[in-house]
Amino acid sequence: MVPREELLRRADVLRKKLQEQNLDGALLAQNMTLFYYAGTLQCQYVYLPVDGEPVGLYRKNGERAALESGIRLIQMSGFSGLPALLADAGFSPGRIGLEMDVLPTAIYFKLQQAFPGVLFADVSISVREARQVKSPFEIELLKKAALQADVIHKRLPSLLYEGVKELDLAAELEAVLRKQGHQGMTRVRGFNQEMFFGHVLSGKEGAFSTFLDSPTGGLGLSTASPQGAGWRTIGRGEPLTIDYGGISNGYIVDQTRLYSIGNLPDILTRAFDASLAVQDAVLPLLKPGFTGAEIFEKAALTAAEAGLQDYFMGYGDTQVKFVGHGLGLEFDEFPILSKGSKHSLEENMVVAVEPKFTFPGLGVVGLENTWQITSTGAVKISLTPDAHVIV
Amino acid sequence: MVPREELLRRADVLRKKLQEQNLDGALLAQNMTLFYYAGTLQCQYVYLPVDGEPVGLYRKNGERAALESGIRLIQMSGFSGLPALLADAGFSPGRIGLEMDVLPTAIYFKLQQAFPGVLFADVSISVREARQVKSPFEIELLKKAALQADVIHKRLPSLLYEGVKELDLAAELEAVLRKQGHQGMTRVRGFNQEMFFGHVLSGKEGAFSTFLDSPTGGLGLSTASPQGAGWRTIGRGEPLTIDYGGISNGYIVDQTRLYSIGNLPDILTRAFDASLAVQDAVLPLLKPGFTGAEIFEKAALTAAEAGLQDYFMGYGDTQVKFVGHGLGLEFDEFPILSKGSKHSLEENMVVAVEPKFTFPGLGVVGLENTWQITSTGAVKISLTPDAHVIV
Repeated sequence: MVPREELLRRADVLRKKLQEQNLDGALLAQNMTLFYYAGTLQCQYVYLPVDGEPVGLYRKNGERAALESGIRLIQMSGFSGLPALLADAGFSPGRIGLEMDVLPTAIYFKLQQAFPGVLFADVSISVREARQVKSPFEIELLKKAALQADVIHKRLPSLLYEGVKELDLAAELEAVLRKQGHQGMTRVRGFNQEMFFGHVLSGKEGAFSTFLDSPTGGLGLSTASPQGAGWRTIGRGEPLTIDYGGISNGYIVDQTRLYSIGNLPDILTRAFDASLAVQDAVLPLLKPGFTGAEIFEKAALTAAEAGLQDYFMGYGDTQVKFVGHGLGLEFDEFPILSKGSKHSLEENMVVAVEPKFTFPGLGVVGLENTWQITSTGAVKISLTPDAHVIV
Repeated sequence: MVPREELLRRADVLRKKLQEQNLDGALLAQNMTLFYYAGTLQCQYVYLPVDGEPVGLYRKNGERAALESGIRLIQMSGFSGLPALLADAGFSPGRIGLEMDVLPTAIYFKLQQAFPGVLFADVSISVREARQVKSPFEIELLKKAALQADVIHKRLPSLLYEGVKELDLAAELEAVLRKQGHQGMTRVRGFNQEMFFGHVLSGKEGAFSTFLDSPTGGLGLSTASPQGAGWRTIGRGEPLTIDYGGISNGYIVDQTRLYSIGNLPDILTRAFDASLAVQDAVLPLLKPGFTGAEIFEKAALTAAEAGLQDYFMGYGDTQVKFVGHGLGLEFDEFPILSKGSKHSLEENMVVAVEPKFTFPGLGVVGLENTWQITSTGAVKISLTPDAHVIV
C-alpha cells in the first residue's frame, strides 16, 4: 500500500504545476496516474484540486478501492453527473487539466459536454514531470525490482547452450522473474507503444528494428508480435542481449546484459567495449543540473570516438536519438536523455542509461543500467555485473 | 504474413461502413487496427479512402514495413505534411473518420490543425464492427491458439499440489504457453483496460473483483497489479479457475477451466453445474440472427433458475452485465453478449461464452469456451474438455 502521506506529498508536487498553468484542478484518468495519486487502480478518475486534497472517483468495487487507497473516495456514475459530484465535494472548477497525451478523444468530448463553459488544458507534461523525482518509498521498490533482474543472470549460464531457442530461453527467464513477484504487465505510456517483459535478442535477427521507440526490436514471433524473442536458435559466436528488468509493486528497473557462446566477432567485442566507454563517459554527467541533451551528446560523441557512430542506438533510419530514459511505473518516464532535451537531472530522479550498438547482419550488443541520481553522482540500482559473459 | 487479398477484402468491409457515414476515408491509428488493415505494426497510420486502396504511412523502418505488408506504403514525417502526402497519393478528403475511442486527444488536435476545414467523425464503432466476422485465414490462427490453450491443461495436473503458490503455478503455465509461441502481449482495446495472460485464481481471494471489465479479477500481486495470480498457496477443497487462453499470430482464444484438490463445497459444485447449464442453454442461440442481449438474457435466466442469480458474473456492485464477448486480435472485440446489446450474431463471428459464479469468502467457479458461429450453430474452437478436474 502507498502511504497516505506519500500520496498527499505527490499531490502537492502536481498542484504547484497546475497553479503555474492557472488551472483550478486536474481530472486525472490514465491508469498509472490514478495509481500514482490514489494508490489504487480501482478508481476511474482522480480529481486533484489546487485548493484541496485529491478525490478518487470510482464506479464499482468501492470496498476494494477503500482498502487500497489513502485518499478520499466518492462513487460516480456517468459523465453527466460529474460536475454535480465535484460541486458536492466542494469543487466548481472553471479550468480543468486533462492528460491529453493519453485521454481518448471520445472521452474528451464527453467531458466537454458534461462541463459546459469549462476550459480544458493539457497537463500531460506536468503529470509526467511531477513524477520524475522518486521518494524513498519508491526507491525501495526499485531496489526490490533490481533483485529480480539480478536473479535471471545468476540462472542464465545454466540455461544457455548452443541450439537453444530464443523463445524457450525467454520463457524460462520470464518464469524466473514471475516467481519472484514480477507482475508481468509491462507498462509504457506512449500511444501504441507496448512491450512484453523486454527483449531477448540473438544473432542477426536481433538487429531488426521495430515500431517501438527503442534502440532494439528484434524479429519477434510474428508480424503481430514483431519484437523480442523469436523462433531462432542461438548459435556459437553470436551476440545475445538480455534486456529484461524487474518490476516490483509496479516499479520498474531496466537492465541489459550481453552473453555469447564462445567469442564474438571483433567488431562486436569492440562495440561492447564502446558501450562500457559510453557509460563511463556519461557517468560524471549523471548529476543534478546536467540536461538530457548534454548526456546524449556526450554519449554520441564517445560512440563517435570509437568510430561506431553509424551503429549507435540503431542504424540507418531506425537510429533513435536518446541514450536513456526515466523509470518508475512506466518504461517511458521523464527525463528522457535525448537529443535536444532540456530537462535537467535532479536528486532522486531514476534513469536507465542504455548504450547499444546495432550491426545489420550481425546483431546487437550493449549494456543498460538503472541509476539513482544523488547530489554527489549516480548510484547504480542494477545489481548485476556489467561484464560480457562468455559461456 | 497476412495475404494481400485478405487485406483488401478487409478494407472493402470497412469502406462500406465509411460510405454509410458519408466519409471520404478514415485515418486509422490504433495498433491492432493498423495490423488488421496493413498486416504490419510498422506503420503509424493507415489511410483507407472510400475510393481506392488503403495506404500505410510509416515514419521509420520502411524496409521492414515493406517486407511485412501487402498494401502500398508511403513514408511520412510530421503531422503538418500529412494533407500534402495524401494529396500526392491521390486523396484530398473533406471528411475523415478517426478512432476516437482510442485516439489520444492531443493527436486529435494535431490532426485538426494539420487538416484545416476537414470534418472529423468517430468511426470507432465501424472499425470494431468491421472486424467481427472472421475470415478462414483468421479462423485457422484461432484454431492454432486453441492448441496452445489445450496444452496447459494436459500439463496442469502434474503441476498442481497442496501448498503450491498461485504465482508459481501461473509462471509454469505461462512458460508452457510461451514455448508454444504465445506472444505474451495480451491486447485489450478499452482505455485503461489491461491483462497479463489472464487469471489464475484460487480460494476466497479469487472472488475479489477488480477495475477490469471482467467477471473475475482476483487479489493479484499488489495494488499495482491487482488481478490474476497472487501470493496465496492453493489448499485442499478450494476452487482453482484457470482463465488462460492461447494467442497465435495475434489471434486470441479465451478459455477457463475449473480445478480443485479434492472435492469442493456443495454450493461451488452446484454453481459449476450451473455454468455448464448456462452454456447448454445459450448454445442453441449461438446462431446467426440472435442478439447479444438475447443470449445474455437466456444466460441470466438459466442462472436464476439455478437460484444463483446473485453470484452470476460477479456479485453485488461488481456484477458485470455480459456473459461473453467477441475475440480476434483483442479480448474485447465485438459482438459483446451483454444486456441490451443489439448486435446480431453472423456466420464466422467468434465469441467467448463465460458463465461464471463468484462467492465472496469462497471463490469463483465457471467455464469459458471460444465458439465459431456457423450457419447451423456454434462450433467449439476450444479443445479442452469442459469437466471440473479434481486432482
